[in-house]
Amino acid sequence: MNKNKIKIGVVGLGTVGSGVINLLEKNKEEILKRSGISIDITCISAANKNKKRDCNISGLKFYSDPLEMIKLEDIDVIVELIGGESLAKDIVLKALENKIHVVTANKALIALHGNEISKAAENNKCDVAYEASVAGAVPIIKVIRESLNANIIHWVAGIINGTTNYILTEMLKSKKSFSEVLKEAQALGYAEADPAFDVGGIDAAHKLTILSSISFGIPLNFNSIYVEGIEDIELVDLNYAKELGYAIKHLAIGRKNADGIELRVHPCLIPKSRLLANVDGVKNAVVVSSDAAGPTLYYGAGAGSLATASSVVSDIIDISRKIIFKSNASVPLLGYQADDLKEQNILNIKEVESRYYLRIRVTNRPGVLAEITKIFGSKSISIESILQKEDLINDKFVPIVLVTHSVIEKNIFDALIDIEKLDVVKGKIVKIRIEELDS
Amino acid sequence: MNKNKIKIGVVGLGTVGSGVINLLEKNKEEILKRSGISIDITCISAANKNKKRDCNISGLKFYSDPLEMIKLEDIDVIVELIGGESLAKDIVLKALENKIHVVTANKALIALHGNEISKAAENNKCDVAYEASVAGAVPIIKVIRESLNANIIHWVAGIINGTTNYILTEMLKSKKSFSEVLKEAQALGYAEADPAFDVGGIDAAHKLTILSSISFGIPLNFNSIYVEGIEDIELVDLNYAKELGYAIKHLAIGRKNADGIELRVHPCLIPKSRLLANVDGVKNAVVVSSDAAGPTLYYGAGAGSLATASSVVSDIIDISRKIIFKSNASVPLLGYQADDLKEQNILNIKEVESRYYLRIRVTNRPGVLAEITKIFGSKSISIESILQKEDLINDKFVPIVLVTHSVIEKNIFDALIDIEKLDVVKGKIVKIRIEELDS
Repeated sequence: MNKNKIKIGVVGLGTVGSGVINLLEKNKEEILKRSGISIDITCISAANKNKKRDCNISGLKFYSDPLEMIKLEDIDVIVELIGGESLAKDIVLKALENKIHVVTANKALIALHGNEISKAAENNKCDVAYEASVAGAVPIIKVIRESLNANIIHWVAGIINGTTNYILTEMLKSKKSFSEVLKEAQALGYAEADPAFDVGGIDAAHKLTILSSISFGIPLNFNSIYVEGIEDIELVDLNYAKELGYAIKHLAIGRKNADGIELRVHPCLIPKSRLLANVDGVKNAVVVSSDAAGPTLYYGAGAGSLATASSVVSDIIDISRKIIFKSNASVPLLGYQADDLKEQNILNIKEVESRYYLRIRVTNRPGVLAEITKIFGSKSISIESILQKEDLINDKFVPIVLVTHSVIEKNIFDALIDIEKLDVVKGKIVKIRIEELDS
Repeated sequence: MNKNKIKIGVVGLGTVGSGVINLLEKNKEEILKRSGISIDITCISAANKNKKRDCNISGLKFYSDPLEMIKLEDIDVIVELIGGESLAKDIVLKALENKIHVVTANKALIALHGNEISKAAENNKCDVAYEASVAGAVPIIKVIRESLNANIIHWVAGIINGTTNYILTEMLKSKKSFSEVLKEAQALGYAEADPAFDVGGIDAAHKLTILSSISFGIPLNFNSIYVEGIEDIELVDLNYAKELGYAIKHLAIGRKNADGIELRVHPCLIPKSRLLANVDGVKNAVVVSSDAAGPTLYYGAGAGSLATASSVVSDIIDISRKIIFKSNASVPLLGYQADDLKEQNILNIKEVESRYYLRIRVTNRPGVLAEITKIFGSKSISIESILQKEDLINDKFVPIVLVTHSVIEKNIFDALIDIEKLDVVKGKIVKIRIEELDS
């Protein structure tokens, strides 16, 4: 059935690109049975033709210049898997100009240039699909755009960076420090040589930019996200959290409240009874809380060659179906009609309310707690519980672990500045937000 | 924009029907912003017009005969929410005959008559959507049909009946018997007056019929499913399971292996480390394990007025988009091209391999274990661990809890018949399968 043949070009033959080529080969028959569509890779592009790869590219027409490929080849869909922003953006815009649909796994590209790409897609009546850009194999983009589309979404919270989740899980499990586990993760290929993007939270912030746009109907706005990484999380905090009935996870959170939208990426304590607190290792999971469906959760592999390819190919099938049936019935790129994407007030982190876990190192003598609590009192911060460890009784300094009631962040910031100035307090105070994830 | 108006008729104004009417009213603006579509309810039908309801039906044209409504009204989509099989089937087939698309939440209808309905839909070039038929708000149908469609699915396992999950959760939590908790569940509205459909596993089997068809590409075949309910689960078993590191859950399992497909609904022990073991109360969750994506999990409300309506309305939006864009780009009703749905060998439960939890009440004297293990040995059943409780040391009978290695079910069935005949064994042996849910 020649009429059901779709011609695609793949740009980028790294982990994900190889996965797409392998998956289309391996499951060609199953894909045909499900969709009735034969997806044929007619051309590929990568920087270096002769690099050793995990996929067979013999018989596929090769271009070292992807823009040349777009110009010369008659393809229906281009699959952009090179990552990065600059060349990827040129490729996507040039493809759209040539009325070629786009599938991408590139979160940075969508987060930083998605508004422009969305306009170009609309002008050229083409689709840009990006399921693989957030949470790998987990179909969170389709779920929010197409399954929760009768809902008003209140908040979305996710573990959407496998590297940080692996490190936090492994620290607690093997009783090791952040830097030890990071080194191991790099050796295992779970963390990049330059881990800043992952452990510093930038990667999760790119993904939250996308999730918050399609959840709340706001244009993509990476710069408004508050970002903290996990570099300062110590094993002792993971242990205290556990003792208090919590797990520490690096979360991306978008929440709509009466005053505006909170957008933040940071570590937090989650009650161990929540499913999200039990998502371990490199896995990803996203909870969406909405008015009709209530809280729903989506879990799976957040990265990996075939896992990410699973989402890329599902996007290719969606677009192919529309091409074959000559249909314009596309879901809007960012989940809302373009005219209905509206800027909304994004709250500064200092306006956000949180409960807090605090670990303060103090001189081991009477009266210290009174000095500290006096400052909290002056900033209207009330303390829910105190965990004072006496195991270092002979030491000059002991840790006090405090859990606060809900407070405006500005107050806690101000209080901690004052407390850190006290003579009896040693070093920087560790502060980690607590998220109940109530529905 | 009149061209983006879709006219629907709703049949059945119970919990789900009221939810659909309320949700379309409440979130009309959000739905319009996302889809660009105005969904207008032009007519409704129910058995009794004047019954007290949780939704406002004033201004909506009412029919007591839904077939009359189909004949007289000019609607694009009919939403069938009366449940049951007989009238529901007439309504759906009559609607299709009249080229009216169908959205339904009716699992019994799809499970028992879906093959016929699928043909009628194809002949009339209409869609029949049924997202709400399995796992309420959880978009598991769309995920399997549209997001995992580049995968070969190995197995699917789910908690897809909220009533049984609520009862099992509550028994352990409040240390009560099955019958006590069942009565409470009925009082809370979580269980029907006649609970057989839920606690006996029929409802879950209807849903598994649907999940296995769209997962493995087989026609719907309710009769081939092996079904056990939770009526015989005792509090003591929940406690022993916990002690062994497991939770007891009522699971629906479809698994493809070398010899055929296993389709079964029964209680089982799941390692407490699995997310599925931590899904409590009335919630539902489904794990799908497939070759590319790996294991992915989908969790949320399995029932409820607005939660189920969330899925119903998402189906209405999907169909409306196709109507408005005059698109025939439908996903096949059962996830595979009609010609590619093929019967496959469904394994008899006796051919299935499982590990087993067994609780045997025996006379409290030496030599008993030897008699029992001799019989296991003769059927090639090896024992992984034994938990012998001495807390009833002065009693005449004591429980022995055994965990077996993986065995063919026929062997365990045969062995238990022989063991139950022993003089030292008192009453029926409790046997519950163990599912590791490895990926």
